[in-house]
Amino acid sequence: MTTTWVPVPDGSPFPIQNLPYGVFTPKSGGAPRVGVAIGEQVLDLAAALGDDVFARGSLNAFMAQGRTRWQRVRAETTRLLADEAHRAAVEPHLYAQADVTLGMPFEPGDYVDFYASEHHASNIGRMFRPDGDPLTPQWKHLPIGYHGRAGTLVPSGTPVVRPRGQQRPAEAGGLPGFGPSTRLDIEAEVGFVVGTPSELGRPVSADDFREHVFGVTLVNDWSARDIQNWEYVPLGPFLGKSFATSVSPWVVPLDALEAARVAPPAREHEPRPYLAEKEDWGLDLTLEVRLNGHLVATPPFATMYWTPAQMLAHMTVNGASLRTGDFYASGTVSGPEADQRGSFMELSWGGAEPFALPDGTKRTFLEDGDEVTITATAPGADGVTIGFGAVTGRVLPAVDA
Amino acid sequence: MTTTWVPVPDGSPFPIQNLPYGVFTPKSGGAPRVGVAIGEQVLDLAAALGDDVFARGSLNAFMAQGRTRWQRVRAETTRLLADEAHRAAVEPHLYAQADVTLGMPFEPGDYVDFYASEHHASNIGRMFRPDGDPLTPQWKHLPIGYHGRAGTLVPSGTPVVRPRGQQRPAEAGGLPGFGPSTRLDIEAEVGFVVGTPSELGRPVSADDFREHVFGVTLVNDWSARDIQNWEYVPLGPFLGKSFATSVSPWVVPLDALEAARVAPPAREHEPRPYLAEKEDWGLDLTLEVRLNGHLVATPPFATMYWTPAQMLAHMTVNGASLRTGDFYASGTVSGPEADQRGSFMELSWGGAEPFALPDGTKRTFLEDGDEVTITATAPGADGVTIGFGAVTGRVLPAVDA
Repeated sequence: MTTTWVPVPDGSPFPIQNLPYGVFTPKSGGAPRVGVAIGEQVLDLAAALGDDVFARGSLNAFMAQGRTRWQRVRAETTRLLADEAHRAAVEPHLYAQADVTLGMPFEPGDYVDFYASEHHASNIGRMFRPDGDPLTPQWKHLPIGYHGRAGTLVPSGTPVVRPRGQQRPAEAGGLPGFGPSTRLDIEAEVGFVVGTPSELGRPVSADDFREHVFGVTLVNDWSARDIQNWEYVPLGPFLGKSFATSVSPWVVPLDALEAARVAPPAREHEPRPYLAEKEDWGLDLTLEVRLNGHLVATPPFATMYWTPAQMLAHMTVNGASLRTGDFYASGTVSGPEADQRGSFMELSWGGAEPFALPDGTKRTFLEDGDEVTITATAPGADGVTIGFGAVTGRVLPAVDA
Repeated sequence: MTTTWVPVPDGSPFPIQNLPYGVFTPKSGGAPRVGVAIGEQVLDLAAALGDDVFARGSLNAFMAQGRTRWQRVRAETTRLLADEAHRAAVEPHLYAQADVTLGMPFEPGDYVDFYASEHHASNIGRMFRPDGDPLTPQWKHLPIGYHGRAGTLVPSGTPVVRPRGQQRPAEAGGLPGFGPSTRLDIEAEVGFVVGTPSELGRPVSADDFREHVFGVTLVNDWSARDIQNWEYVPLGPFLGKSFATSVSPWVVPLDALEAARVAPPAREHEPRPYLAEKEDWGLDLTLEVRLNGHLVATPPFATMYWTPAQMLAHMTVNGASLRTGDFYASGTVSGPEADQRGSFMELSWGGAEPFALPDGTKRTFLEDGDEVTITATAPGADGVTIGFGAVTGRVLPAVDA
């Protein structure tokens, strides 16, 4: 079992088996730079490795160097932090996480949001189409996805201003309402950051997932259900989603998640060859969603019907190219149990069944001042548990237009 | 009437009243740089104005400087090209357009595609929902839009590889088909490039359209109707659109389009205040769509129900921010007449009514080797007609996956 000379408290999300990458700025001053989390500290990689590719405000330049390089840097960082002999040289480049500010870890290219949880899609389908089939006919043949707004991906901690927008008329044929959303929601998701680009016109195989995807983050895809409900037929969600999508500051490398790989749920149909996987890329992540500190849901990522490797293959099967920094999210993670649902829409069943908080209050959708925090854990190497840090955000009241 | 010492042939799209911006590379060598089209030549702006902001491979740095600066540069460029006294100094910085390669004029942020032609939306609605209302209930209350893939915006001339993808099963409940699209289509659109960014959480007023939007391009939003038809419910188009979207190389500044401004069609409902416009931003552009050199449609942009200023206001009403390089397109431009339709889907009525080409052949959708070219004209200052150059692309056969 690999150990480190850096103090790592019991239960820390950041043992040496994890080593996620982020972009930090010392509160004492200086430029943003790339770091690796270890215990309660962060290692300044540019200083520790003497490589300027890390002296940047995003991971993109490093991510573009490709998987062989990612593996070398991970091995070298592990060596520096494991071997006491390096302590004197490396310790000056450690900062307490409390003494740094974490920013957006990568510069986004395109942002795609999938819809890959059968439980989530079924719940939403049952609410929206109570008399029909909860899943649309193609749902089990392909991972449904759509493009979101990359320019409003924001780092964890960014406040979320309650959006205004049009809402469905009270009576069919009437004039639509307009004002602050009254059905503001979260979506607890997992995100995947593309490192290695691909060529236009050349699909990427599901088997090449780890050649292209650098790592994994947590995502809160804030959603205004009333705005979305009025706008989304026939071209999909737009303003109901585009005001903010929060991303966790640490990108957990795929190589830290080897022990978390599991088979996805049994497939109902033989997948088309381009969606077949030689290796399993289901991931045994357990999310925790907290509202103002109260645990409200524990969505299990292992129940997702489509894997991130299948999402990647689908996204490119038409020849669409990948850029370094492209980002795609899983869609809301919901499990089969009521307390495993990753959105308030599901937890309150469309607002019809308010859910109780431990302090006795009840909730349907988000109120001004609410703070939502999503964390996650997964099995790491050597039998340890690794974490993802947190994605958090507080709701601010709508502003006058 | 302003005239120029540069020879401008009769009927040139690029009289001195136009002066669109592009990014060019001399075929004789050298780095990409910003230029302005005049007649059959292009002026190297970095050299002519002695300003390094133009010595870049995109317009973004210049566009980020804001409208006052855009106006100054346009005035200065006009002066240099109008006054014979500057000829000796300026002429060495002119290149024949035949001697340069034109690239993507801007580095895209987000790409949004609207659906703002009532004739197009009604035609599509009639084909897809023959028994229902052709327009969805919100259509006349807001400009429907969705995010597209910015990473596959390509400059005019880029070949378009026929995409592969899943297609709807022959019988409901059967297995989907998979293969090269057999319903590959165009969408003739007009695009708007954002120069001045905006702050997250702060909507942009329709009245501030010209403070934020730098200029106008032509767009061909290639579409695979069979892929789109199977995938798009409920989250909208994805792979049916994301393989390529072609953009014309010249960005016509808004200031060149003052004489083209017209009132949009009469509104059926009083617009919500955020969609009200103090000034008219309908634009009297006439598009021409050619297939292998044959004119097949002349879509009139003046018939668009929603204006680009309304699209901008809608896109940001929820607080979504703008970045320099954000790009949004109008959606297919179709007029009321059969020969004014901007997609093959409409020209062939879903493939049911093949349309005739002048050489006697008939068409429904695109065949391998087909070349589509979209051009446009508009009224310019001094009673002249200005043009947009062309967006063109040829279809290549699908590649083996």
